[in-house]
Amino acid sequence: MRHHRLSLCGEHLLPWVRAQVARAIRKYRMFGPDERVLVAVSGGKDSLTLWDILLDLGYQADGLYINLGIDGYSDASQAKAEAFAVGKPGARLRVVDVRGEYGASIPELARAHRGRKTCSLCGLVKRHIMNQAACEGGYAAIATGHNLDDEVAVLMQNTLRWSVGYLRRQAPVLPPEPGLARKVKPLCRVRERESAAFALVRGIDYIYDECPHAAGATTLFYKDILNQLENRSRGTKEMFYLNFLQAREQYDLFRAEREQVALHPCAHCGQPTTTPGLCAFCRLWVPPEQADDLASACGQADEDDE
Amino acid sequence: MRHHRLSLCGEHLLPWVRAQVARAIRKYRMFGPDERVLVAVSGGKDSLTLWDILLDLGYQADGLYINLGIDGYSDASQAKAEAFAVGKPGARLRVVDVRGEYGASIPELARAHRGRKTCSLCGLVKRHIMNQAACEGGYAAIATGHNLDDEVAVLMQNTLRWSVGYLRRQAPVLPPEPGLARKVKPLCRVRERESAAFALVRGIDYIYDECPHAAGATTLFYKDILNQLENRSRGTKEMFYLNFLQAREQYDLFRAEREQVALHPCAHCGQPTTTPGLCAFCRLWVPPEQADDLASACGQADEDDE
Repeated sequence: MRHHRLSLCGEHLLPWVRAQVARAIRKYRMFGPDERVLVAVSGGKDSLTLWDILLDLGYQADGLYINLGIDGYSDASQAKAEAFAVGKPGARLRVVDVRGEYGASIPELARAHRGRKTCSLCGLVKRHIMNQAACEGGYAAIATGHNLDDEVAVLMQNTLRWSVGYLRRQAPVLPPEPGLARKVKPLCRVRERESAAFALVRGIDYIYDECPHAAGATTLFYKDILNQLENRSRGTKEMFYLNFLQAREQYDLFRAEREQVALHPCAHCGQPTTTPGLCAFCRLWVPPEQADDLASACGQADEDDE
Repeated sequence: MRHHRLSLCGEHLLPWVRAQVARAIRKYRMFGPDERVLVAVSGGKDSLTLWDILLDLGYQADGLYINLGIDGYSDASQAKAEAFAVGKPGARLRVVDVRGEYGASIPELARAHRGRKTCSLCGLVKRHIMNQAACEGGYAAIATGHNLDDEVAVLMQNTLRWSVGYLRRQAPVLPPEPGLARKVKPLCRVRERESAAFALVRGIDYIYDECPHAAGATTLFYKDILNQLENRSRGTKEMFYLNFLQAREQYDLFRAEREQVALHPCAHCGQPTTTPGLCAFCRLWVPPEQADDLASACGQADEDDE
């Protein structure tokens, strides 16, 4: 690990990565030792590494696997998540099957909503289900497996556009709002390589493939750019991320955008939404005319949130 | 010019680049048609292109060439600047010879101040001389040949570090302060390729070599990174730069740093400085003990500005 001027064998890697995670949880006040955490588990290396570490650190961390119904990918990744849970003492996994629960898989939903990007639909569905599960289950926070490389790649994309709204919200912790659970990223200081090495040494069996729909090329492109920067000057990634967080805090950057948008409960599911009537998630599942009816029933005009 | 979805022959390139420059001068309120402008001329393509355009647009633009005394580079670049001025109606070039004026060339100065970077010393000297010439000559602004690629490369370096102080000051126009002339970058919307093409079509003979001391590798590295981003998504460079300027303005980013630092006149040259006694430029030319004496003579403690 050049950026830390550190070489670790497998035996010492494990406690080192765990300590990094424990430090991030404390430093960013993600959750306390007595709070229950819901880990969003995809079956990949990052989320399983995260779950493994949280359980070993003694946290009450349950898993949530969302089956998106993607052929040749979802069932395989669910199997990995379930196998991990079976072999891990204290691991409880909840599975939500999108097609079973709502009537359509992500690919089917994408076909019904041509013109919308599959990854954007999928993100909307996952956020909704995660939040619902966290709120219903009384969890203090939703933990996702975003690692440092993920965070830095997104930061670079948002910075190149100076997308103030996104730059304001990109953080290791997103505080809760009424009806919206806290979101935390305990691996935000752990690099992709370290997370993969951890999984390898721990013998965690994870799904290697990327989702076939993933805009993997874009993320990989930015990760490659960042690796070039890192290779030229070690520590660049971490500096970019940490200096961003510090400068934003210290100078209160992007605060002008911070005005609270008014949130209403969705007329159907009750989750908070900015659009009158149905939330963006519920609107996915009803024909447009019915959504209009529902919105009018609430005495509010229908607005497209896209 | 893929980013503009435009292909121009030589004949049409010239007015197009001139119009870009004219638009930037107006848009960023760099200077008015009756104001006198001092162009910092290095003998390279950008500064000669800039000077050529300003004169053809009808501005009262004089040139300032600073001979830094760099073997095998300064005399050659001075010759290019002088040859241009001789062949250009209305072009008046002032030459300041650093060794002749102050007693040491930049390389000699660097040898006398080991531990300080040559490029940083050189920048300090050039800024001082440019400002002095502009103030003495009653010019409304100093115009430098920074092009879009230069600006974007610097923006990327500053953004990767979130150097708030630099991010605050990077602009097409730096407003004047008492004793400090306004600084403007009329080529800030013109790409390096466009500037080079302009010089080529116009038959401007410029020095191709980079300064032998230049930290060219670093700038070239960032320009290469930005070209990769641009090749993936055309317009990225311009978007990065323009969105930065717009977001900074709109959300008043980095304003916390904007508190005025107190400026005093230098005890020797009279130019504004933040350090008591001698300014950083004048301090270069006197032995340390003498600088201390001068500072004490002003009844102020000596502080190192490095």
